Amino acid sequence: MTKQASNPQTREWQAMSRDHHLAPFSDYQQLSEVGPRIIVKAEGVYVWDSEGNKILDGMAGLWCAAIGYGRHELADAASRQMKELPFYNTFFMTAHPPVLELAKALAEIAPQGMNHVFFTGSGSEGNDTMLRMVRHYWAVKGQPEKQVIISRINGYHGSTVAGASLGGMAGMHAQGGMIPGIEHIPQPYWFSEGGDMSPDEFGIWAAEQLEKKILEVGVDKVAAFIAEPIQGAGGVIIPPDSYWPKIREILGKYDILFVADEVICGFGRTGEWFGSDYYGNQPDLMTIAKGLTSGYIPMGGLIVSDKVFEVINRGGDFNHGFTYSGHPVAAAVALENIRILRDEKIIERVKAETAPYLQKRLRELADHPLVGEVRGVGMLGAIELVKNKATRERYPSELSAGMICRGHCFNNGLIMRAVGDTMIISPPLVISKAEIDELVDKARLCLDLTAEDLAG
Amino acid sequence: MTKQASNPQTREWQAMSRDHHLAPFSDYQQLSEVGPRIIVKAEGVYVWDSEGNKILDGMAGLWCAAIGYGRHELADAASRQMKELPFYNTFFMTAHPPVLELAKALAEIAPQGMNHVFFTGSGSEGNDTMLRMVRHYWAVKGQPEKQVIISRINGYHGSTVAGASLGGMAGMHAQGGMIPGIEHIPQPYWFSEGGDMSPDEFGIWAAEQLEKKILEVGVDKVAAFIAEPIQGAGGVIIPPDSYWPKIREILGKYDILFVADEVICGFGRTGEWFGSDYYGNQPDLMTIAKGLTSGYIPMGGLIVSDKVFEVINRGGDFNHGFTYSGHPVAAAVALENIRILRDEKIIERVKAETAPYLQKRLRELADHPLVGEVRGVGMLGAIELVKNKATRERYPSELSAGMICRGHCFNNGLIMRAVGDTMIISPPLVISKAEIDELVDKARLCLDLTAEDLAG
Repeated sequence: MTKQASNPQTREWQAMSRDHHLAPFSDYQQLSEVGPRIIVKAEGVYVWDSEGNKILDGMAGLWCAAIGYGRHELADAASRQMKELPFYNTFFMTAHPPVLELAKALAEIAPQGMNHVFFTGSGSEGNDTMLRMVRHYWAVKGQPEKQVIISRINGYHGSTVAGASLGGMAGMHAQGGMIPGIEHIPQPYWFSEGGDMSPDEFGIWAAEQLEKKILEVGVDKVAAFIAEPIQGAGGVIIPPDSYWPKIREILGKYDILFVADEVICGFGRTGEWFGSDYYGNQPDLMTIAKGLTSGYIPMGGLIVSDKVFEVINRGGDFNHGFTYSGHPVAAAVALENIRILRDEKIIERVKAETAPYLQKRLRELADHPLVGEVRGVGMLGAIELVKNKATRERYPSELSAGMICRGHCFNNGLIMRAVGDTMIISPPLVISKAEIDELVDKARLCLDLTAEDLAG
Repeated sequence: MTKQASNPQTREWQAMSRDHHLAPFSDYQQLSEVGPRIIVKAEGVYVWDSEGNKILDGMAGLWCAAIGYGRHELADAASRQMKELPFYNTFFMTAHPPVLELAKALAEIAPQGMNHVFFTGSGSEGNDTMLRMVRHYWAVKGQPEKQVIISRINGYHGSTVAGASLGGMAGMHAQGGMIPGIEHIPQPYWFSEGGDMSPDEFGIWAAEQLEKKILEVGVDKVAAFIAEPIQGAGGVIIPPDSYWPKIREILGKYDILFVADEVICGFGRTGEWFGSDYYGNQPDLMTIAKGLTSGYIPMGGLIVSDKVFEVINRGGDFNHGFTYSGHPVAAAVALENIRILRDEKIIERVKAETAPYLQKRLRELADHPLVGEVRGVGMLGAIELVKNKATRERYPSELSAGMICRGHCFNNGLIMRAVGDTMIISPPLVISKAEIDELVDKARLCLDLTAEDLAG
């Protein structure tokens, strides 16, 4: 907030934050000095704070609110299920209707041959499940030495100890320690790391790092490769067109599993049900969360191919699971969310109309002096802030150009996230063309204000 | 189920299970052959399956439904919050009222000096958070080499890779691998491992294993000791009276953190708000989940003492958190759950009336020829099935006495869980004396039926 809140209730909540709340990914001293902005309600693509500001949420909460805010059908589904059966576990040869119907519904929308679902409470837990299941899979197949998971620098796979280790974020590795058996390869981030190569040359080079790593570790030691179709938290990194075909070619040569982390790309974000559909990839396992419930209730999962299932089905007990795995209320909300996505043809509209419009309008910002690149796919976009458009040179990191821009956005009624000096968006899939206009117009205003600050 | 379902809808759900659902801690082939029992509704302390059977839920779902099923106030709280603000993240200097009010409410009921809450989606994620925070704490204090967490064999701390490693379950360690920096010491399970020692002698011995391990690892390497006040999933293991005082004495001698896993013991299960209150322990961090929302919605967390907070508050960014950390709908439900526990004096009634009654009635089963020991605290109980009461000799494990008993219970309208040959209960805190009578009477019947099977 920086400036003093005018609503006394805001100041009361800020005191509660200071005295009692440990927020995720925060510097607690700084947070208590500044005081958090308090978000109190939401409707459609907008949120309101406790000072009465209406803000266009360009991040859908945190890549979550696919169907937008304020859909009472989900509240009704939650309430109905909570009154009927608020909880029962699925551990001891028991189940309940919502979890089974959701598993079936997911098999219907997942890529062909992916028909089995292990439910978790989050994407992080989905990736922990993946790691444990993949190692179990190879043990059942009689190759217990296949343990290593290959992942990518600057990938994001959650914040459990395993998730943070799978991810490629140095700041997370430094707190809590890395677990063994995970190897990281470079990311396909041409704008930042492509140097003098063309995007397609760089895409091939980045993909070849996978083969290099497989051979270095030994194919008899490698269990799986995990990747987001498009890196989200890393900065909406769209791989060059050459990348995924080359990765598929390499995966075809070696006997390892392919895991797609669809936590961000899943449920329509790219204009297809899954990012893997968008790129024509054929994963063996897919992690899901966020768009699964539009974030209205916590839920995640792991969708498993018939190929993997056939092995674990003969593997005896899989000694893994969470109390809230397949929680009936979460499952009921997810079912209603999927029904809305399907019945209202929201993803079809994204693909045919609003994503092309968003991408066209967003790219108009490329002429801005502060902007080095605009990129995007579907309802994902990134704007690179640079000092020099031609050389892709950044501002010194101590200037925090991205944070300055994020601040201007918030104060001018737009939520964009800053990943370093990359501004990213991921609005609700239901955003209209008029709202896209508002988003892009506000983004331009805030780029101007940021440029002024940086010049000053 | 074993016998063919009479309701065609049941068979349809069982087919969905076979074709699409990967249940937690299951053998998928066996599960599809038997077919799961489908739980369709719940009210008070009872659940109903899709075949029309009414079953007294002696496990509260899975140590969850503290206030019982069917409390519409929680459904209304969820629905209200979902309509107002179904989601917003708390990452980027933002927050929302429910998460802040819940953090404050938890500080009010937590042991003195524990005023700060980091929210997660589950107990597993709470323990991952603990591990990452504890290591961060020592790094900020300038002792980054203090990394090792001491835990106990047969403890349970969740199913993430870190949670399974912290826990002491061999079957879980075998699938997915252990992470480094975790050391296990023996558990205070007198009935199983006490040999010729008296319970109090054995309790001292088991506690001394902590000191032995601290000295073996080196106090400059040890970050923390984690334990459940009473082991839950291990088999409702009540430590001998001598155990916790001796542990406190040892912890007082060395500079390491004490973590209580209150996922099962928290929120009234022992007749106090937390198991740590029951034993007079003073943890530095406490993991919570389950009773926090009575399981009506997924939520977990980590309650942090002022002592720990004071250090991480000057540690800069804590690079950790989950999308659903402090989820507004989960927080609203937790607040309403805590209000009910408090306003209806449910924990006071457990302590004064129903827990003493349950413990008295339960101990009457000790005269049964199959029963080697009955133990319990508050609304927790365990019944040890044995071949020889005097020597505490078990039946051969291939007879699966516990599973036989669990099957009879389910078929006679009672849910008890089997941990090996230990039958355990953890009913809703709101269970009445009449329902306790029903529970104990049914338990005796099922012990008789189990004894008959074992004799045959």
